Amino acid sequence: MEALEMALLLDYYGGMLTDKQRECFDMRYNQDLSLGEIAEMLGVSRQAVNDNLSRTEAALRRMEENIGCIRRDRKLRKALDSIRNAAGELDGSSDPSAVHLGHMIVDAVRSIEE
Amino acid sequence: MEALEMALLLDYYGGMLTDKQRECFDMRYNQDLSLGEIAEMLGVSRQAVNDNLSRTEAALRRMEENIGCIRRDRKLRKALDSIRNAAGELDGSSDPSAVHLGHMIVDAVRSIEE
Repeated sequence: MEALEMALLLDYYGGMLTDKQRECFDMRYNQDLSLGEIAEMLGVSRQAVNDNLSRTEAALRRMEENIGCIRRDRKLRKALDSIRNAAGELDGSSDPSAVHLGHMIVDAVRSIEE
Repeated sequence: MEALEMALLLDYYGGMLTDKQRECFDMRYNQDLSLGEIAEMLGVSRQAVNDNLSRTEAALRRMEENIGCIRRDRKLRKALDSIRNAAGELDGSSDPSAVHLGHMIVDAVRSIEE
């Protein structure tokens, strides 16, 4: 699960990293390469890769702690699920305009999730 | 409008600033104090206040550019408005369960906006 969490942090906050930090982090957590493989590809020591990854992880965690995009989006997703479920139930309504409004709401939820 | 934009940036990304940066920025854009007033209160030069504010503004703008919370929330708010409007229209439905689902959806939208 750690790799998943790291990939998520990179998605949200990767824009604040240097190219080198981002590349190294992506190799480790999206491409699932080992420290040794990354070190060889970048022409640096295993220790340098390890240090770089640790610093990047600390920076990303600090951003999530202080800005909280992931926390907020999790809360949002739960609320959107309940909206989508309620709107889905409108499909069975005897009132055609309620059915139509239900579709509009489902589309709007989808546009947020994209 | 500039003060409003700066206050918004501070809301989202203020957690990443130092206490001193945040205090100075808050005095300027939330409390609407002049550079001279801030300088006097902090016991530093007007120029130091000005430099501090410029650096803070640059850091906040860089975060919005690379992370984009405000951009994303603006898009979200538009979609939530259209969901709330559609759910509001359900209030006039001849189907009581559609009316009930409409209320549930409005409540869920409200929970997101809080």
